[in-house]
Amino acid sequence: MSEKIAVYPGSFDPITKGHLDMIERAAKIFDKVIVCVMVNSSKEYLFTRDEREQLINDCIAEMKNVEVDSYDGLLIDYVKLRNTNIIVKGLRAFLDFEYEFQMALTNKHLDNDIETMFMISSNKHSYLSSTLVKELVKFQGDVTEFLPKNVERAMQKKYEEGYIR
Amino acid sequence: MSEKIAVYPGSFDPITKGHLDMIERAAKIFDKVIVCVMVNSSKEYLFTRDEREQLINDCIAEMKNVEVDSYDGLLIDYVKLRNTNIIVKGLRAFLDFEYEFQMALTNKHLDNDIETMFMISSNKHSYLSSTLVKELVKFQGDVTEFLPKNVERAMQKKYEEGYIR
Amino acid sequence: MSEKIAVYPGSFDPITKGHLDMIERAAKIFDKVIVCVMVNSSKEYLFTRDEREQLINDCIAEMKNVEVDSYDGLLIDYVKLRNTNIIVKGLRAFLDFEYEFQMALTNKHLDNDIETMFMISSNKHSYLSSTLVKELVKFQGDVTEFLPKNVERAMQKKYEEGYIR
Amino acid sequence: MSEKIAVYPGSFDPITKGHLDMIERAAKIFDKVIVCVMVNSSKEYLFTRDEREQLINDCIAEMKNVEVDSYDGLLIDYVKLRNTNIIVKGLRAFLDFEYEFQMALTNKHLDNDIETMFMISSNKHSYLSSTLVKELVKFQGDVTEFLPKNVERAMQKKYEEGYIR
Amino acid sequence: MSEKIAVYPGSFDPITKGHLDMIERAAKIFDKVIVCVMVNSSKEYLFTRDEREQLINDCIAEMKNVEVDSYDGLLIDYVKLRNTNIIVKGLRAFLDFEYEFQMALTNKHLDNDIETMFMISSNKHSYLSSTLVKELVKFQGDVTEFLPKNVERAMQKKYEEGYIR
Amino acid sequence: MSEKIAVYPGSFDPITKGHLDMIERAAKIFDKVIVCVMVNSSKEYLFTRDEREQLINDCIAEMKNVEVDSYDGLLIDYVKLRNTNIIVKGLRAFLDFEYEFQMALTNKHLDNDIETMFMISSNKHSYLSSTLVKELVKFQGDVTEFLPKNVERAMQKKYEEGYIR
Repeated sequence: MSEKIAVYPGSFDPITKGHLDMIERAAKIFDKVIVCVMVNSSKEYLFTRDEREQLINDCIAEMKNVEVDSYDGLLIDYVKLRNTNIIVKGLRAFLDFEYEFQMALTNKHLDNDIETMFMISSNKHSYLSSTLVKELVKFQGDVTEFLPKNVERAMQKKYEEGYIR
Repeated sequence: MSEKIAVYPGSFDPITKGHLDMIERAAKIFDKVIVCVMVNSSKEYLFTRDEREQLINDCIAEMKNVEVDSYDGLLIDYVKLRNTNIIVKGLRAFLDFEYEFQMALTNKHLDNDIETMFMISSNKHSYLSSTLVKELVKFQGDVTEFLPKNVERAMQKKYEEGYIR
Repeated sequence: MSEKIAVYPGSFDPITKGHLDMIERAAKIFDKVIVCVMVNSSKEYLFTRDEREQLINDCIAEMKNVEVDSYDGLLIDYVKLRNTNIIVKGLRAFLDFEYEFQMALTNKHLDNDIETMFMISSNKHSYLSSTLVKELVKFQGDVTEFLPKNVERAMQKKYEEGYIR
Repeated sequence: MSEKIAVYPGSFDPITKGHLDMIERAAKIFDKVIVCVMVNSSKEYLFTRDEREQLINDCIAEMKNVEVDSYDGLLIDYVKLRNTNIIVKGLRAFLDFEYEFQMALTNKHLDNDIETMFMISSNKHSYLSSTLVKELVKFQGDVTEFLPKNVERAMQKKYEEGYIR
Repeated sequence: MSEKIAVYPGSFDPITKGHLDMIERAAKIFDKVIVCVMVNSSKEYLFTRDEREQLINDCIAEMKNVEVDSYDGLLIDYVKLRNTNIIVKGLRAFLDFEYEFQMALTNKHLDNDIETMFMISSNKHSYLSSTLVKELVKFQGDVTEFLPKNVERAMQKKYEEGYIR
Repeated sequence: MSEKIAVYPGSFDPITKGHLDMIERAAKIFDKVIVCVMVNSSKEYLFTRDEREQLINDCIAEMKNVEVDSYDGLLIDYVKLRNTNIIVKGLRAFLDFEYEFQMALTNKHLDNDIETMFMISSNKHSYLSSTLVKELVKFQGDVTEFLPKNVERAMQKKYEEGYIR
């Protein structure tokens, strides 16, 4: 049996407890999970590429078969670079579904071997988007249940430096 | 690395080319795929439990890591019986999604280890439901592109025997 | 320029003001509109095939380029029988959309020349399904705004004869 | 200020923890909440009208401003009978939404004063439909988290008497 | 019975006839309705905070139990500030639903006592978003049926001053 | 029979094979199809108004009853300018539907004679949005199946000139 490697892509700006739940579950199904921070030079991020990788690294320190990486290009090119064909994504709700469906079909067109496996986000606060998280931090609402401790501290620091307005 | 076994459940009344596409793709990702005909004593089927198993068996003869089974009970009980925790399902469209989402959450509640992995149905005729297939056969429309050859013959036989009205 | 004929299919059990709105609008766009009562021998109807045709006929008496017919078979076979390739359907809401999308793709597969043209139901009471209409009649609620006068009388007669329970 | 009375209608076959969560929340907003078992003579139920009323009664014994009733007719007629114009409904997900939207518009048409107020089902197991509950009981799965204790016992009794197949 | 106060939040840039319909209906159900202009410093508005409050004030002059306010912060903080726990929102269609569902769950997480009550927008032109209203004004289309008279004049003034491009 | 003219509006930035499929099918149903590049001065485009018209012109050279135009204003004003009342649009999926539904109802309000006819996008790569096409070109992915040859060349030129980042 060949090793099954799954790529879990995202902008992770920042990583949330919902993402971590997905990573833990995927790590039980695949032999290795690569969390890949996708970089899009035309988008503005709250955290830099390095900061985002570092925050994830802190969160997954205990998970043996999970690693972090980042990539500035097409997801399918990265997947092939890592010699695999499996993408893992979380689905929270219908709006996710429509977009992810389109992306999965596009990726399959670009390379027919690519398979996107979807898992339902069952974490109870998984419905919180990162936009809402930023809104909460902006008005100093409680984000304890949505963010890992290190990310909560990093968000608070961004807020104090005036980056969240 | 432990062997990864995925259960692909369904009523398969009968199996279609869309199902076969899902089975082939899952068989490339998991070490073994068990196609399980779920039996619900309160529903009426066109094909018997044995016929449904046999039709699938004919279709997967060439696939080494795929086997067929049937079960009269809760899906999660079957999954545990086979010493695995992975369910594979196809998503064709939104209406699938809502129902499957509910089922996946229910199964996760009944056993938190159970994971449902969804794959997008990319097969071009995957949108055809079995209800529409029966409608086509009823009026003797062309089903060549939707059904495997053996299933097409079996459907035609059911039609000639007066079972499809 | 060849004559453009559109088929407007449905079960019309019975025809509602929402249907009539669609017929009137389609009749302004196409040279001829054929309202076709589709008959499915495995379904139970409130009105017979003849009654449904008659109720529609009474409603469209004034529309010069509209005619009524009925058919027991596949819609695309009927469309070809009438030497056209245009189907007209109304869309009320999302649930309609998903089902109609599936039907339109199936029909296009069976005959690539077939085109389904959708029009939005703009009539203000178009959201009322025939199931809800029957429910209203059953409890003698007011259906004046949903049904043409002749259909309202026919429904009331069915009710008095004990057919609506 | 006049007393605000809300009617919470449903088939309640049987009442679940998701329903109870809605009733408790509505009871905090309105002066009185009437849980009304809607009876549809053309549908088959697992529990009789009396049994359904009794099960709800046992559940709400402690809630001072909640009462139970049942009605065989149009919801809006019942609402008017109770001298109010407020209906309360729970929304679990999109499929609920489409149907409830249609019902709310229909009821508003029948009586423009009628207002339907929707509350989001936040109870964590609210996604479980009663069809799925019956499926679980049928195969003797664990329903503790979905059903109040008295309802669980009543379901088990129905199962032992052979009513759930 | 304690007084029931509902907060109806929005950006109201500007208020439309659809909003007014919601306010009037909520005012019949709750003892007091507070229309609250939510201010988000990172968004660009056509009308200033004061202008938006003033336009609403003109519209609700006749409604005794409705008042206007504005707030720069989290909605739930405002709701608590006003000693209530009831939010009222309108639902026009599915896209509203998904977003509002997410917001309602988030607010409930932040304070479990907060209840969001949804009412269906039944006003016939409620489907018009403010983006479409601006588009209409930009090309001097007819907005009489979508906007209250004072808002229509204010929009026209903004247009003449070159703010709508 | 009067000539039936349909307007097919869009931003066409740039035109794709999915659009061309729609144009060809509409040209078989209507006597004339006018492809109209809608110009919105507040949006940024990759291609200029002239470039977009030219790219379409090259694609439809062989189609006798199709012409290209562009317009800076409300769609319904353009439709009336061309002495017709028919708009043709493609529907790819649900998210299209919701927005298009809103637009069609708005246009019908502005002029009750205006009819929007929807056709299902059956072209196999029709799910690809122009945003995804630009993403593909940006990372030099293969777009042969999504874009007509002349458009592919024009996109590549834009890329080489540094316009796609």
